[in-house]
Order: sequence, then C-alpha cells, then structure tokens
Amino acid sequence: MKRTIDVCLSPALMHLYPIEDQTVVIVDILRATSCMTTAFAHNVESIRAFAQLPECLLLKEDGYFTAGERDGQKVQGFDLGNSPFEYMNPALKGKDIAFTTTNGTQAIAKASAAKNIVIGSFLNLTAVADYLRKTTHDILIVCSGWKGKVNLEDTLFAGALVEKLKEEFDSACDAPVIAQRLYLQAKNDLKDYLKDSSHIRRLKKLNIEKDIDFCLQEDMYDVVPVIHQNAIRVLKP
Amino acid sequence: MKRTIDVCLSPALMHLYPIEDQTVVIVDILRATSCMTTAFAHNVESIRAFAQLPECLLLKEDGYFTAGERDGQKVQGFDLGNSPFEYMNPALKGKDIAFTTTNGTQAIAKASAAKNIVIGSFLNLTAVADYLRKTTHDILIVCSGWKGKVNLEDTLFAGALVEKLKEEFDSACDAPVIAQRLYLQAKNDLKDYLKDSSHIRRLKKLNIEKDIDFCLQEDMYDVVPVIHQNAIRVLKP
Repeated sequence: MKRTIDVCLSPALMHLYPIEDQTVVIVDILRATSCMTTAFAHNVESIRAFAQLPECLLLKEDGYFTAGERDGQKVQGFDLGNSPFEYMNPALKGKDIAFTTTNGTQAIAKASAAKNIVIGSFLNLTAVADYLRKTTHDILIVCSGWKGKVNLEDTLFAGALVEKLKEEFDSACDAPVIAQRLYLQAKNDLKDYLKDSSHIRRLKKLNIEKDIDFCLQEDMYDVVPVIHQNAIRVLKP
Repeated sequence: MKRTIDVCLSPALMHLYPIEDQTVVIVDILRATSCMTTAFAHNVESIRAFAQLPECLLLKEDGYFTAGERDGQKVQGFDLGNSPFEYMNPALKGKDIAFTTTNGTQAIAKASAAKNIVIGSFLNLTAVADYLRKTTHDILIVCSGWKGKVNLEDTLFAGALVEKLKEEFDSACDAPVIAQRLYLQAKNDLKDYLKDSSHIRRLKKLNIEKDIDFCLQEDMYDVVPVIHQNAIRVLKP
C-alpha cells in the first residue's frame, strides 16, 4: 500500500491530523522557510525557532544571532529580519540563529509532536521531495498561512510537493487535491498567479518585491533542513 | 467602498472571522444544505438544525419530522435521512423538521452568533446571490467540510458564489480567491472535477450517485432559506 500525503491548510487545523505518526513539512514561503533554506545553503550551523519574541532574545547572550519579524517587518533590536538576502551574509557561516516570525515559527512550534519536521520552500522543492521519498512515514504538509487564515503561496507550494510525489504517495483527503490543482493552474507563472493574493499585496506595501521574486524560484538550493536535537539543522550524510 | 466576501474553508476556522457583523452562508453540498433547499422548494414550513441527535429526537413529541444522518447514513429511528429526494414528499408540505447531520448542522450551530444566516447550495445558487446583493453586511461563506477538514465540493460552491458576486464584492483574503479559481477550473463539468474527492468516494460506497448528480445541478430552485426565530424558513415578501 502506498503511503499517504496530506495538506493542513492552516496551523489552526493541525489538531485534526495524527502528526505523532507523520513526517511534517513546514511551509512559510513568504518568507520564514525561504529564509531558513537560504541560510543553510550559506552554511549557517543551526536555527532555533521560537513562537515568542522574548525567548528568542534570551539566546543573544549565548552567542546566537537573533532574527525577528512581526507583520512583515523586522523587529527592533534583532540582528536580522525576514529577507532571504540577509541570510546570504558570509558572517553567518557556522553560526547559530534564534528565529521568530508571525506565522512560520508558530507553525513549527505547534508541530513539535511530529515524528520528524522538515523545512520546505520553493528554493529546495526537489531536494525536499527526494528526501521525503526516503522517509518511512505518511507525510503532512503544514501551510503556515496568515494568522490562522489560509494563504495562496503556501498552498501552491504544498501543491507543487504533492505533484512531485504523486507517483509514490496517495492523497489522503481533499486538501492535497485542492493544492495540487491550484499549482497545476499556476505553475507556468507563479508570480502572476499570486498577484492578487493578500500577502503579496501586504508585502508590496513594504517594498520587498525583490524578496518575493526570489522566494518563488524553484530548486535554487540542494539543502534539506530538519529538526534534530531541538534545532533546525542540515544533517551531514 | 465595496463590501467584502470571504470564505471560511472549515467550521474549525470560524473563530477567525467576525461573524457577529457578517451575513453567513452555510454550505454542505453533500448533502445537508441541498436537502434543506429541496425541502423548502417543496413547501416545508420550517427546519430546526441541531448539532446532536438527542435534542433532535425530543422534538418528535411536538409533531416534528426528524431527519438524521451520521457518516453519510440515515440514523435509526429517524423519519428522514439525508437524500434530497426524500424531501420532495408531498406529505412534508407545511410541516416542521428537526434536522441533524455530520457536518452541515454542526456548522449552522457554530454560526449562531452571525448577523444573518443563509442556506446555500448549487440548487439555489442564483437565488442566494440575488438575495445577498440586497443585504447590507459583509459576507462569509462557511464550508461545512468533513469533520473539520476542508472538502472540495463545498469549496467549489463557495467559488461559484464568489464568481457570481465579484462585481459587487471584494475578496477579503486568499480563501475566496482559491475557491473562485477552483470553480473556474471545474465549472464545465463539476461531476468530473469532483470524481477524486474523498467525500464522493465515501458516498459512492453508499450507492447514492443519484443524490450526487442531483446536488450538483445549478439553479433548480428559487428559494432562499434563512434563519428566523430559531428556525430555518423561507420568508414571504
């Protein structure tokens, strides 16, 4: 029997899924998981994800770089914001980061009971798909959304991953079918398809179109960040 | 400024929406709201919707017909099940029904704080759209889904209604955009588009393809059931 793939369209629905027995892929395309993917592609050592700002700041004393975003904007007093370009800085090589964002790190915190947690973005889409084929549990893709509401860009990524894995996995219910069909409709021009999305409009007001263009590129990097020993890391083979 | 239209893809997300200030459209295409629409088109007087079976049965003593479904099947001891064809019975004319289903009546119960509650289905799509144009509040379409999870057929109906009202209402966030785009992809052959949906597969096992075909027909009836004085009714002009 094939394993199943499922999609949780909002962290507020996570209680409906048996994550204790699933490999969970966390997605926050704009921009937390895109930043994390970029950071590991530039040799960051580890990232600890926090739901709250104060716990994140506490790690500054332990030599962590602090990264914080709320409502799309960098938090005062933090070293880094939520633009993937900040995570290409050579000064971050071998360093540890404490990270908190509006949606993505909240989703990670809620998924802590999962068998295994993987960080996914368009930037490492194929690498994540290849990794998942080698795992042994059913898969749940968790879209971070926007404050509990469904968003289009995370749903499209979920659809891209369902599409990549359709030969090896059966869709567990309608959410993966919905995501996959939207992706098939969108894939020839993701940016154009997303132009009416609420988060894109929100981010455009912050002048970060360059970030959006970057985050929508498939397969820029070959890294698969996973949670291991309380932090996100790329495991060496 | 235009009013907004929004879509709540699962009753488990309803707490995220300001329903106290919204007109809520409840959707359970397979089959609760399709049955209710059919019942009122055949001159049923009122329907009271209950989340639980026992409260529903209590009304039998007051002369109500009882209608109950759990997991797609009629409940023992109830007068009616959840097939729209049962609600065409002339014996129901002028009668009151106490109704409980797996998803639809649960969604109605959760929406009780809304400004106004409307019952929508493909069977009365245009009638509901015309009614909503004449209301004064923002609109939230609540998909009943399946035990908290998103389903395809309710999402498609939400998309059909968003599409009908796109000139008069702005989409409030990404969920209406998602629903609308799925509907545009599906509208030429709803049944074919739904053939992989989990609920359709579930219902096929129960041999009710005739019900599915019926429930996917647009604009069979010109009735708009709304909640008024603790029951669903069609208000006379």
